[in-house]
Amino acid sequence: MNILKAKKINYEIERNIAIVNSQTLSDLKIKHSANVKVKSDTGEIMCEVLSTDTLIEPGFIGLTEKLVDELKIDSEQAVKVFVRRRPQSIEFVKTKRKGMVWKEGEIRSIVNDICSGHYTDLEISMFTLAQYYLGLTMDEIASLTTFMAEYGTTLSFDEPVYDKHSIGGIPGNKVSLIIVPTVAAAGLLIPKTSSRAITSPSGTADTMEVLCDVNFTADEILEIAPKTRGMLVWGGTLDLSPLDEIVIHRVEQPLGIDPHSQMLASIFSKKVSTGVDHMVLDIPTGEGTKMPTKEDAVNYAHEATELGRRLGISIEAALSYGEQPLGKAIGPALEAREALNVINGNGPTSVFEKSAELSGILFEMAGLAPPGQGANLAADYITKGKTKAKMEEIIGVQGGNATVQPEDIVVGEYTSTIVAPKDGYIVKLSNSAIKKIAKAAGTPRHKEAGVYLHKKIGDFCKKDDELMTIYSNSEGRLTDALNLSMNLTPFLLEGMIIQRISSGPKK
Amino acid sequence: MNILKAKKINYEIERNIAIVNSQTLSDLKIKHSANVKVKSDTGEIMCEVLSTDTLIEPGFIGLTEKLVDELKIDSEQAVKVFVRRRPQSIEFVKTKRKGMVWKEGEIRSIVNDICSGHYTDLEISMFTLAQYYLGLTMDEIASLTTFMAEYGTTLSFDEPVYDKHSIGGIPGNKVSLIIVPTVAAAGLLIPKTSSRAITSPSGTADTMEVLCDVNFTADEILEIAPKTRGMLVWGGTLDLSPLDEIVIHRVEQPLGIDPHSQMLASIFSKKVSTGVDHMVLDIPTGEGTKMPTKEDAVNYAHEATELGRRLGISIEAALSYGEQPLGKAIGPALEAREALNVINGNGPTSVFEKSAELSGILFEMAGLAPPGQGANLAADYITKGKTKAKMEEIIGVQGGNATVQPEDIVVGEYTSTIVAPKDGYIVKLSNSAIKKIAKAAGTPRHKEAGVYLHKKIGDFCKKDDELMTIYSNSEGRLTDALNLSMNLTPFLLEGMIIQRISSGPKK
Repeated sequence: MNILKAKKINYEIERNIAIVNSQTLSDLKIKHSANVKVKSDTGEIMCEVLSTDTLIEPGFIGLTEKLVDELKIDSEQAVKVFVRRRPQSIEFVKTKRKGMVWKEGEIRSIVNDICSGHYTDLEISMFTLAQYYLGLTMDEIASLTTFMAEYGTTLSFDEPVYDKHSIGGIPGNKVSLIIVPTVAAAGLLIPKTSSRAITSPSGTADTMEVLCDVNFTADEILEIAPKTRGMLVWGGTLDLSPLDEIVIHRVEQPLGIDPHSQMLASIFSKKVSTGVDHMVLDIPTGEGTKMPTKEDAVNYAHEATELGRRLGISIEAALSYGEQPLGKAIGPALEAREALNVINGNGPTSVFEKSAELSGILFEMAGLAPPGQGANLAADYITKGKTKAKMEEIIGVQGGNATVQPEDIVVGEYTSTIVAPKDGYIVKLSNSAIKKIAKAAGTPRHKEAGVYLHKKIGDFCKKDDELMTIYSNSEGRLTDALNLSMNLTPFLLEGMIIQRISSGPKK
Repeated sequence: MNILKAKKINYEIERNIAIVNSQTLSDLKIKHSANVKVKSDTGEIMCEVLSTDTLIEPGFIGLTEKLVDELKIDSEQAVKVFVRRRPQSIEFVKTKRKGMVWKEGEIRSIVNDICSGHYTDLEISMFTLAQYYLGLTMDEIASLTTFMAEYGTTLSFDEPVYDKHSIGGIPGNKVSLIIVPTVAAAGLLIPKTSSRAITSPSGTADTMEVLCDVNFTADEILEIAPKTRGMLVWGGTLDLSPLDEIVIHRVEQPLGIDPHSQMLASIFSKKVSTGVDHMVLDIPTGEGTKMPTKEDAVNYAHEATELGRRLGISIEAALSYGEQPLGKAIGPALEAREALNVINGNGPTSVFEKSAELSGILFEMAGLAPPGQGANLAADYITKGKTKAKMEEIIGVQGGNATVQPEDIVVGEYTSTIVAPKDGYIVKLSNSAIKKIAKAAGTPRHKEAGVYLHKKIGDFCKKDDELMTIYSNSEGRLTDALNLSMNLTPFLLEGMIIQRISSGPKK
């Protein structure tokens, strides 16, 4: 008999684990640690079985709250339990070797099986690591992208959709909060979906959420965006690319990898899902970014434009300087404040310029400005208050305070400032050190936390000049961040010794 | 405070899971699903954390019996809990790309970290799949082998050690039970360690265990083997190659893969550990084996001999015909019976010949026979009863009944016989179908289960002639095996249609 009663247990674990009595285990003719499929009328999940003699009586299956929710059932409701069969598409994954190309149908069944929850974590890793170690051809990436999009929610508008995307990697990159209202102010439709921070101090959705709501359904976006011309929402609620979520959380993050082909498919599947027609792609380049050399970045740009071509999306890629954080503010609240400052005409030049450049490219793609003139037009939109008016409108329809002022935004009450150890020019400002310090201070979870940079690369500072201030809403986290900043050398001053290497003591 | 009291819980799961109160979780400043290291004075393990509000009180950590045993602690004993740090050697795994070669020191730290339990399953899969997708150079394989052996138990004898190894893949390969006593009877030292079945119906250790004990400590082997000259023991108790066990159980088996380099390192690490100097390597070749083409087998043989050269082991590789099971008996008890029959002079020619050939190669390597004459000498040992006398001695010292007769061996009481559906010559006899049928009948767990083949490839049979008999000690499993044999076509008779492929119904 494979029908059991669900029992909600107050256990918490990310992994899907079902608990059954050891009697049930032998009734089902399975061993502990087996993978089973649990099925209700409203959903199905894969679980690994943990067996016990206590806690769960025979005939019941203990499921965590997360799993009960996924099955959309009540406690005590009957569910069917099947021994998992290894999905056939695993065989396609297994045959992957150097030079071997997956066929379209093979990729479709792999994507469908992963999205339906038929793969174990190890099997997903086998798929992801094939990409990591061997790479995919452009045909394979295009198929993967298409099927990833097909499996998710799709948005469809009656007019061309514009978009801006950054491959990420540098902290403080809040330009979307300036680009979206600028482009929308010109009448172009830019319903931007964005992500929350995974490893960075703040994702665009985290930053925007300081100002207003970012959780909207597909129907709401389809209704609101054509009127305001722009929105800034979190893509996570929309389920645009289910495979992406699964692969990121279950394999890429735990292993700390981001295979090239999967990164492209991840980005573009969401663009296909949201009906994007024209896109500017920001590729931060240089030491400490995802594209350490210009060659890497150019190759990537060629691949992205080629992939766009195959998917019917026109792409302009823009390589940007990425060897230090963008602007001065890092962390959701501090970045939201800085974005408003830029819109108000008081922000750092670097943020203003980059926003105008990228908006300008979209203007040129739309034929609103002749080649090379887009950035000037965009700068006008910002300086003349058109961006500001549009941003207020967007914040308003997204349920925020439309007339919020930069200084209204609450930042961490505990602060500590790092000063220069000596006179000198700043020659390096480490993205990864700043990320780690911001994280220790509490970002992205605590929106008030972050780092504010008083100096950037090329600035001269005298001994004891302020270099950066750390913000936190917890004294403990402030101390952690401060200790970390002592160890990490976020700022390198000319003449400072980077590392000492010696032959060891004489013997 | 990271000191908690261990509490043994009666949960069973293969995965290492520790259960703590959600209060403890926040005290430790970790989230559920985090990986932690649990350390006692006598051991350490990695666990994934499951949190709960009930069951476990704050200050305690719930551990399954398996984990309590691994830590060698009592319930309520204090253990230290640390948040896991990602081992540094993961970075070496990550840098693996086509053309990139791991350095010796990198492989050493990967092996040590995996064996010390510092890797998660996903991280182990990243290491294994690097091998699967990219392959390793011979230098890398040699280093991997050496460090795998270094980490385990080593046996050291004062004289040359001989060995026979089969890469496996075909069912019914019981020749070690004939080769070891033959070689030992000639005075050569052959303390053979072997494995239990993982996916096959019977491993050499499973078959030998029908006749006597196969669990011996390193000290026992070092004491007994020099006297008897030969032993047949299970390698599993000896912990010869801890990495191998981990990789096989946690990645290779769940994914159903066996990367070439890891297979070589697996075999040879145990040879290094057991001090082998001269080895004959049996490589079953052909459709349905691990080496489908002769080219695969020849390449493999070259690699194995080269690896042997680097490790100081002289190797003679022997390609053998592998397109059908060896002999007539498949399954531990049936195979033990057949091995004794061969030793007594009543067994199938194929088993006799293969045993004599492989033993003969070892005789030639030892200088006991001129080139090409070893097999004749070995055949003499068998036919003249020297092999039998030595086998009785070995069974005796390994705690079995030295004078056991083939017919004394108990086989499954439930049997069913498959007959030929028509007249014809047998043109195929499928290794994989026979394996699956034997498995369904209960092998390798139920030693009495198995399959006995009445006909082999090339035999002519008339309609209703007996093809094979299935043995089981359970009526249910017999039925399962019988049903499976109906679906799998283990025997193909000339003129039978293999598969029909049509264009589908007309539209």
